[in-house]
Order: sequence, then structure tokens, then C-alpha cells
Amino acid sequence: MAAHPPPRPALPAGAEPLPAGGVTTPAGFQAGAAACGLKASGAPDVALLLSEVDAAAAGVFTRNLVIAAPVRLDRATLASDAHRIRAVVGNAGNANACTGEAGWRAARTMQADAAAATGCLPEQVLVLSTGVIGAPLDAAQVARGIAAAAASLSRDGGPAVARALMTTDTRPKEAAFRLALPGGGEVVLGGMAKGAGMIHPDMATLLSVLTTDAEVPPAQLQTLLAAAVDQTFNRVTVDGDTSTNDTVLLLANGRSGQQLGTSARVAAFAAALQALCLELALQIVSDGEGAGRVARITVRGARREADALEVARAIATSPLFKTALAGGDPNWGRILAAAGRAGVAFAPERLRLDLAPDAAAPLTLVEHGEPVRAENARLAALFAAPFVPLILDLGDGTATATVWTCDFTHDYVRINADYGT
Amino acid sequence: MAAHPPPRPALPAGAEPLPAGGVTTPAGFQAGAAACGLKASGAPDVALLLSEVDAAAAGVFTRNLVIAAPVRLDRATLASDAHRIRAVVGNAGNANACTGEAGWRAARTMQADAAAATGCLPEQVLVLSTGVIGAPLDAAQVARGIAAAAASLSRDGGPAVARALMTTDTRPKEAAFRLALPGGGEVVLGGMAKGAGMIHPDMATLLSVLTTDAEVPPAQLQTLLAAAVDQTFNRVTVDGDTSTNDTVLLLANGRSGQQLGTSARVAAFAAALQALCLELALQIVSDGEGAGRVARITVRGARREADALEVARAIATSPLFKTALAGGDPNWGRILAAAGRAGVAFAPERLRLDLAPDAAAPLTLVEHGEPVRAENARLAALFAAPFVPLILDLGDGTATATVWTCDFTHDYVRINADYGT
Repeated sequence: MAAHPPPRPALPAGAEPLPAGGVTTPAGFQAGAAACGLKASGAPDVALLLSEVDAAAAGVFTRNLVIAAPVRLDRATLASDAHRIRAVVGNAGNANACTGEAGWRAARTMQADAAAATGCLPEQVLVLSTGVIGAPLDAAQVARGIAAAAASLSRDGGPAVARALMTTDTRPKEAAFRLALPGGGEVVLGGMAKGAGMIHPDMATLLSVLTTDAEVPPAQLQTLLAAAVDQTFNRVTVDGDTSTNDTVLLLANGRSGQQLGTSARVAAFAAALQALCLELALQIVSDGEGAGRVARITVRGARREADALEVARAIATSPLFKTALAGGDPNWGRILAAAGRAGVAFAPERLRLDLAPDAAAPLTLVEHGEPVRAENARLAALFAAPFVPLILDLGDGTATATVWTCDFTHDYVRINADYGT
Repeated sequence: MAAHPPPRPALPAGAEPLPAGGVTTPAGFQAGAAACGLKASGAPDVALLLSEVDAAAAGVFTRNLVIAAPVRLDRATLASDAHRIRAVVGNAGNANACTGEAGWRAARTMQADAAAATGCLPEQVLVLSTGVIGAPLDAAQVARGIAAAAASLSRDGGPAVARALMTTDTRPKEAAFRLALPGGGEVVLGGMAKGAGMIHPDMATLLSVLTTDAEVPPAQLQTLLAAAVDQTFNRVTVDGDTSTNDTVLLLANGRSGQQLGTSARVAAFAAALQALCLELALQIVSDGEGAGRVARITVRGARREADALEVARAIATSPLFKTALAGGDPNWGRILAAAGRAGVAFAPERLRLDLAPDAAAPLTLVEHGEPVRAENARLAALFAAPFVPLILDLGDGTATATVWTCDFTHDYVRINADYGT
């Protein structure tokens, strides 16, 4: 089961979508995938991405204190030299987290094996792992997958990478945009993401790799990536659990010959990058484990954006709201109850709650803190729709924030009660 | 479905359990219940508790900003005069929350109706409601229940109250202890609780009423109650959602003729009160919505108790841990991952995780942050047991905290996806 992807905002000026190709859509990137047996199904579980020239790189990682070996390794690699990254190697089926020193050695081995297979140095390779936590990762097994993935590298290997890194995902997530830069020239941005459980605002995707043929120095790339992630991946939640492995990488290889330069060009690139991240984040939430329905929760009228975000997240992670969403049950009192425990001060008597604000005739459920008698049939129909947009107005200021979440279904329980065994 | 209640610590000195009678076990209390049709099943849904003489009263309420009308009313009643409470009236099936001014009037009407039925003043009556949020409460309907409940008042009506206030509970929760006071004399403490969903540490039970025939002034009663609740009801979690209605009331009518006086007597009473609250809290968590298994999470080696509690709660509310528990799946990596996102600083390389620490041979899963190879068959059996006790040692200090939680099952989703409709 998976939900319909929710509607997207309009793309920023100058950006247009490109047919699926994901990370290999920008010039100068190749990808390949292979199976090494980490997935019991025998499906591909090792992925390799190669930049044909040295690329600038940036990364945003989980803020969990318990971090997986590949996250520790990528942080060190980027801190040492982020100007000449050549490859990303990843595996699905084993997260290489909580695996101690043996796990650290396995991540280093993956890095070295990918370097050997692509003819670069280990310190030019970033590593990703996703899957079960706490199980030892057999680097020799992964090595066979890396060799086979390297043999299959091609300029249209992007979709294969998006598939190989899937775990409980029901569909691959990828997108690509072409961007006409102000002042002339164009660049391409592509990306893939995977993640369906252990998804939470603190770094909302397990793994995402983004590529561009723009030429951007690493420090600027890092700033742009962090800003884009904050507004997108960090605004979706599936289950409130933050992973030990969450990683978003962005590689810029300059192959388009386009630099950003002026602030107008930087702004255009930033907007396109944010649109790409949002597109992937919304693909993730609509493929949340067991998801059948997506809600968009906008909190406005807050004193500060952080307050609006806190209230929106309290609603978006409430098991009671999420199970009501699963049942298509218009139990809107749970929305107010979740807002009230968010730890943000507001006056309940000024609350206003609107359902389906995008529709011609939105339905007001609460006004001045008082319930408004709504037409029951319409209320039920709006809550049972595949996409449930809500606006909660705190009546307390002008700040606003939006979070997307999916419902909490029987399938979520089924998937997670049996995942590790 | 409901889980086996977990093992209890030994009772404090001088306390002994009494056969079930709940709130009417102490001298001078009467109770009755009746049906007014709020429950579709036709089961009793209105409860009335009467103290034969004026009682001192104390209350601990939800910290949710969105509070139900009866909570607002009880706060005002206790603030005005907590020395001469005579009755508690409650209903199940409708929470009278998010019901605006009409809800406030309905709560006042319940208070007045109960006063009339028991021959006291409205300001001597406390009010409780539990059930669906956001639906108008018909006070005239409840009035018929109050009249019938008053007609059935008796000194062994305690169990009827515990039953009448059940919503998704599968069994009533009640307990009573006799306490021999240091220096002579004895008092009795009794209590009931209800709550199965919307249960969270911020005030872990929807409703609990405690009674005693000790003579305790209201201010001291409030201090004793707040301390007991903090260590018990606030340490269990079912779903992390804090209710709009959570209320614990304690009535002390002095009918035993025993005052507390010396600090040894106060300490003995405090310990018995805490044991009573813990007993009811553990009955609640083992009857959590859909619960089949209970886990006890002790975090020790923390710098401050607040840190230990924060980490224990992060684990206890993690949907991934709770679904693993539902599956009896020894996916212990999720415990570390949840700890790591608790917002508490610790050194992952000093973590130690022990399973079944009460057993003759506890199983160590993690030591110095490194996984310890455990005997798989024994690990699986311990995780599949009805009670799963864990100790996570942060290796960082001497503070400790314990939280109890239940698993997240298909039944939780089933119950909550359809509850409101």
C-alpha cells in the first residue's frame, strides 16, 4: 500500500521537470547497481554513483547521537576534503549501525572497495547504508556487489540506484529539473531518495543523493543544501523516529560549465534545489510505511516560526491523529489535543481550524476556540480523501510552518513488528 | 486483548492489600453507577462517589493547553475551597472537551445535578468526563444517569464506578491498601483508574479517583498527591498522546480518626499512596489499547534524573520500539536509536544494555557501546515474554528513572481508526 503523492507547489521560475533519470540526469554522472544477497529477495542491494570528474560535495546527516559507521565516515571524509569527491557507494538491507569497531572497519572497506572499482582514492568516496540496525555487515559480501555494480556503470543508471537502495519502500523516489539561470546558461539537478520508516523531522530521509552539473564550491553547496533540507526533508514525518543513518548528499561536478556568481543566480539555484528536495520528501511521506493517506498540517498565526513548527509536528506525530487519519475518521478534537501538548503557549479561545483550505469552499471546524457545526457528510468526505490539508491558526502572530505526515495503519504495525527477524 | 500486569515492587512497610472495593474501601464513602445511553452498548456510563462527611480534596490535572470543561471546573472548585468536598460525578462516552461555552455549561449542570442528588452544594462536587472529544454533551441525558446513580449509592459501590468510567479499557482498574501507621492506628486507601489510550507521562491516566479515611488537610494532600503521581502515573505511556481530560483526584474524609502528624506517619502514608498509584498505573499500561506485552525501561548512569527520564521516555514512545515489542522481535538496535534522539548528551561508546535484569542470568546486549553476541534463542524468548524488562546504562553518572510502556499492535490501530465514528 502507498498513498497518492500530495499536490506540489508550483515550480520556481526557470525550472522545469525532466523525465525520470534521477541522479544521472545532470551531465557527467554514471550509476550502477547489483545484488550481493543482503536482500533475501535477491533484488539489487548495492549501488554505486560515479562523477566523471572531481565534484564538490555537501552532506547533511542525522542528529541522532547514536550514529551509524557510514555517517561517521562521511562526516570525516567531507571535513577532510569536500572538493574532489568522485563516488558514492551504498547498500540496503543492513544499516551498519550499532555494530561497533567491526562496523567501522566494514564501512572503511566499502569505501576502499568502491575506490578501487572506480579508480579513485578512498577519501574520494562517500558511503551509505540502510536496513537492519545492530547486525554485523559482511564487507566481503558487499565487495562482490560493488564489483558488479561498477561493471554496470552507465549514464542512465540513476533509476537502478534508486531501486537498489529501497528497503520497505514500495516505489523508488527520484526527480530531476532543468534550470535556466538568470543571465543565461542552464544547469540540471537530479536526485533520488529512499526511506519509508524511521522518518522524522530531525532529518527526514534515511538516504538521499542529489547531483548537479552546476559548479558550486563546497562551502556554498553546504549552505544551500542545509537550507533546502531544513524546509523540506525536515518537514515530513512518518513515525517520529529519527534514524541512526539519515544522510542527504549533494554532488556538484561543474560539467555544465555554469557557475552561480550573482545573487540572482544563487537564488534561482537555491529555489530549484529546494523544489527538488520537496519533491523527494513528498514522495517519501506518501510512501511512508503502510501509508494510505497524506495530511498537510499548516500552523499559522504563531509568534515565531519555531512555535508554528513545534505545534505542526506535535499534530503530525500524534498516534491518535494518525490512526484517525488511517480510519478516514473526522475526529478533529485530536488535532486540538495534540496542539495543546506541544509545549507552545497559545490561547485556546483564539484557535481556528480549517479543513481543505485549497478547496473552493473550505470547511471551518473551530472558530474563536468554539466548535463550528459542520456538515457531517462533507466533513467525512474530506477526511476520507487521499489528501487531507489542514490549517490551524493560533491567532497569536504572523509566523507559519507546514509539515506533511501520513497515516498510521495496520500495515505500519505489520511491517515493523516483523522487520528485524 | 490485554497484557499481563507486570510484576510489582514489594509494598512499603505496614501496607497490605485489601480485597477489591476500590474507592469505597476506606470508611465513609459510598458509590453508585447507572446508564444514561452515552455508551451505545447500554452499559453504565455515569458514576457517582459520595463522602458521607466533608472531605479534604486534592487534584492533579492534564498539562495540555487544550483542557476539557470539567478540568477547568475542578481546578476552580479546588482553588475556591478544597476542605469540604462531598462528591465526584463522572461520565464516560463523551469527554466534554473542545465543546466551547456549551460544554462549560454542561459541566456546571452535571455539578449542580450531582449536588441536588446527594444533598450538598455544587461547589462541593468535582466532575469528570471521558470519551470522544469535540462532540456536544447533553447534560439533560447525563442528569437522568446521575439521578439513577444516586439511587444506587452504597458502601460497596466502588467496583461499579470503576466499570462505569471505562471507555476502551478492557477491564476495570482498582486497588485498596490498609496501612498501619507508625505510632499506632490504621488508615485505608482505595482507588480506581480508567484509561487505555491518550495515555502519556504528562499525566498518564485519563481519570483516577483515590479515597482515604485518613485526616489530611488539603494543602498537604495536594503535595502528597503531586509527588505520588509524578513517580507513577507520569511514568507510564501507552501512545504518547496527552489527554485534554487527565485528572487524578484524592479525597480524604478523616473517618478513621487518624491524623498524620509526625514525619514518620507522613512518610508511611506517602509510600502507601505511591504504591496505590503505581498499582493503578501498572494496571493501566497493561490494559493499554491493544496491548499484548509490557516493557519496563530503566535508564541509569545518567547525570540527572531528568536526563534518565527523557531517554526512557524516548524509548517508551518510539513507534519502532513499540512495534518490535508487538512482534516479540528482538530488534534492540531501535532502543539505542531512540535513546540517541532523546536530546540528552551521552557517549554512545559507554552504553550498556541489559535484558531481563531481574532474571538469574540477565542477557547483556551492548557493552562499552559494542554489541555483545547474544544467544539467539534466549534473546528471542526473552523478547517474546509477556513482560520485557530492560536496563540501559548511559555510563555517565548515578541518576536513574524507570518508565513502563506497552506494545503498539494492530489492535491499537483498529481501536483508534474507528473510535470517533
